[in-house]
Order: sequence, then C-alpha cells, then structure tokens
Amino acid sequence: MTDLILTTYDWVPKLPRGLVRDLRVRWALEEARLPYRVESTPFRDRGPAHFAAQPFGQIPWLTDGDLTIFESGAILLHLAEKSPALMPTDPRGRAEVLEWVIAALNSVDLPSQPWALFRFMGFPGEAPEAKFVDDFLKSRLDRMETVLAGREWLVGDRFSVADLLMADVMRQVERFDGLANHLACRGYVKRLVARPAFVKAYNDQMAHFAAADAA
Amino acid sequence: MTDLILTTYDWVPKLPRGLVRDLRVRWALEEARLPYRVESTPFRDRGPAHFAAQPFGQIPWLTDGDLTIFESGAILLHLAEKSPALMPTDPRGRAEVLEWVIAALNSVDLPSQPWALFRFMGFPGEAPEAKFVDDFLKSRLDRMETVLAGREWLVGDRFSVADLLMADVMRQVERFDGLANHLACRGYVKRLVARPAFVKAYNDQMAHFAAADAA
Repeated sequence: MTDLILTTYDWVPKLPRGLVRDLRVRWALEEARLPYRVESTPFRDRGPAHFAAQPFGQIPWLTDGDLTIFESGAILLHLAEKSPALMPTDPRGRAEVLEWVIAALNSVDLPSQPWALFRFMGFPGEAPEAKFVDDFLKSRLDRMETVLAGREWLVGDRFSVADLLMADVMRQVERFDGLANHLACRGYVKRLVARPAFVKAYNDQMAHFAAADAA
Repeated sequence: MTDLILTTYDWVPKLPRGLVRDLRVRWALEEARLPYRVESTPFRDRGPAHFAAQPFGQIPWLTDGDLTIFESGAILLHLAEKSPALMPTDPRGRAEVLEWVIAALNSVDLPSQPWALFRFMGFPGEAPEAKFVDDFLKSRLDRMETVLAGREWLVGDRFSVADLLMADVMRQVERFDGLANHLACRGYVKRLVARPAFVKAYNDQMAHFAAADAA
C-alpha cells in the first residue's frame, strides 16, 4: 500500500495549536493504524499549488495514490472506507456514521465555529448577532446533551469516526469553557480525548508546529 | 423497490418557504427519477417520534426500507449511491463529489447560514460579530468565484449532487442579494435553478405548504 500523505501548514501561531484541523485526520489515521506521513505547506505564502489542492487556501488535504482530497470531513469519510476501526461495514452502521458526521459538521460545528471564532477575536458579545449565535449553539448542545446522556457512542455500541469528529468539534467549544452547562457533552469529549490515538495526534501536531518555531 | 419516504413539516411560515431543506432532497430525487412520496410531521408540536427520527427536532429525514436517515447532506450522499445521475461511479469522481458536498456544508454554508439568519432576523449589522461573518462569507465566496469562473460544474464535466447542494446553499445568500459582487456564483445558481428537477421540487414544496394554509 502506498503511504497516505497528510498535508498541513508548516507553522501556525500559538493560539490555534491543538485545534488545527489536521489533528482530526492524524487521530483517524492513528485509530486505524494506517501508514502515513505528514508534509507541510507554507502558512504565510499560499501559492497556486496550495489553491490547486485546497480551493479555499486552507488545510488539511490528503494524498492517497493519485487522489488528493480536501475538507477534513471528506477525508474522514474516505479513511472510514479503509478501516472497520473507523466505521462499521453493515448498511445501517454506515448510514448512521454518515448522518452523524454530517450532523457534526452542519448542525453542531455550524454554530460552534462562529461562537468560538467570536471568542478567539475577543468580541464584546453584546450585539444581537452575538446573542443569536449563543442561543443557536445552546439549542444544538441541549439536543446533543439528551443524545449523549443516553449512550456512550453515537453509532451502535462502539467508537466510530462520527465520535471522533463530534468530539473534535466540541473541543473548540470546551476550549472557551462552553460545555459548563452540558455535562454529558463534556464527559463525552473527556472520554474521547483520553484515547491513545488522540493523545498521539495531539502531541504530534504540537511537536510539528514547535519544530517550526525552533527552525 | 420500496418507495422512498421523505418527511418534512406539515406547514411553515411564509418567509422560509422555498428554502426549507426538504427541497434539496426533492430536487435530488427528481434528478435521479427515484420513486418517492412525501409525508408530514407537525411543525408546531414536535414529539418524541420526531426527535427519534431527527435528534435536533428538524427536518428532513428519509426513510429507505428499514433505514431512517437525517441531515440533508447525508441523505444526498445516500441517494447519490443509488443513481449515476447524482454521482459518477469512478473513484476520482466519487471522491470529488464527497469533498465538494462537505465543502458546501462546512466551508460555504458555515458562514452563509449565520449571514442569512442575521438578515432573516433583521439585525442591525453594525456589531463586530456581524462584520466578521460578512467578511467570513466574502472570503469563501471570493474563492468559489475563482473556482466557478473556470468551469461549469464542480466535478468533471457534468452535473452532480455537489452542484445541487452548493447551489442550494448559495440560494440562501442570493435571497438577500448577497451574490451581487460574485457574478460567477450568481450565474451558477441561476443555471442550476433552471433545471426542470429544481423547478418541480420548488413548486412541490410551495404547493405542500400552501395546501396546509388552505386546510
């Protein structure tokens, strides 16, 4: 098997480290024990080759033989096809992973990403737009709280890439203490990030960017 | 083949009609010429059966035999497996549809949905949070403008469910005249909504909710 190649930035500022989106792909690769290597693309000078691989000028992208895939959510679903560690193989399990992966991206990340970005930016939070996003996120977390109070995993009785992604989306909320009133969500994230594959992925991302500081 | 069953609300207020998310599923079903029927769930009283089918208490969901799938993005990818009208069957075409479907949901809808909701709500738009979302959306549309200026379709030389979803996401921006400075995006949406399958889906949604007004 050709090694998979994960491309991320060569460097990022300290603040987003530990939340850069190559982490969720590293995590999935570690869970699946798929061989891979990491390559870098410049953070500061994003040239035509970058935009050819990732039309929004972001990272990560994954090279798999002659395929190059962008969007971390798409990469996770692509990897899930390669490993039963990431997704069950029966039709119901596959459909449930798919719906929860999309739910993480379009129902939970959709309010949580603006919510977290507003806090990264240090905005005052008094505007009706700020309160709308607060309420939007709360409504989704309230629903996830009910879901996660009743079960350990989103799909069946096992870990899947749906949990990996949902927990990674919720981590950006937890970073700003946004799960204080959603204890089932908080416990879920805590359980997921205790997995050895997450710990390795996290440490590897931090070491990758720290190495660039030292260079 | 068992008919597919698409569930949407029995009624919604006038303002969101034409943008309710069963429309994109109707559109895909029409493009693929798959047999289906539409069922309703109460908009006003969302009970346990609703939350069992759709954990966020939203619509649509699709029933396919003994599977029930929520999240419109997941439903579209599920349907794409059934019809080459929605997705090419080669590995590269499949990977490209997947990445662009996720891009529509997590890179374009992520800023465009808050942007459109702020306008639905009639917020003043002067707060730093409002301007941040404006800039966030603009940055993504700028990139889509470059992509769409160079090609007619997102995947290969043909329509796919990636175009259906990207155009449907951009429609909520266009509704508030948000594509005035992105003419390739505007032309793309205009071309997509001229397809007979979109026109039928749109008219069917409008008729569905109008029938509830009359009842």
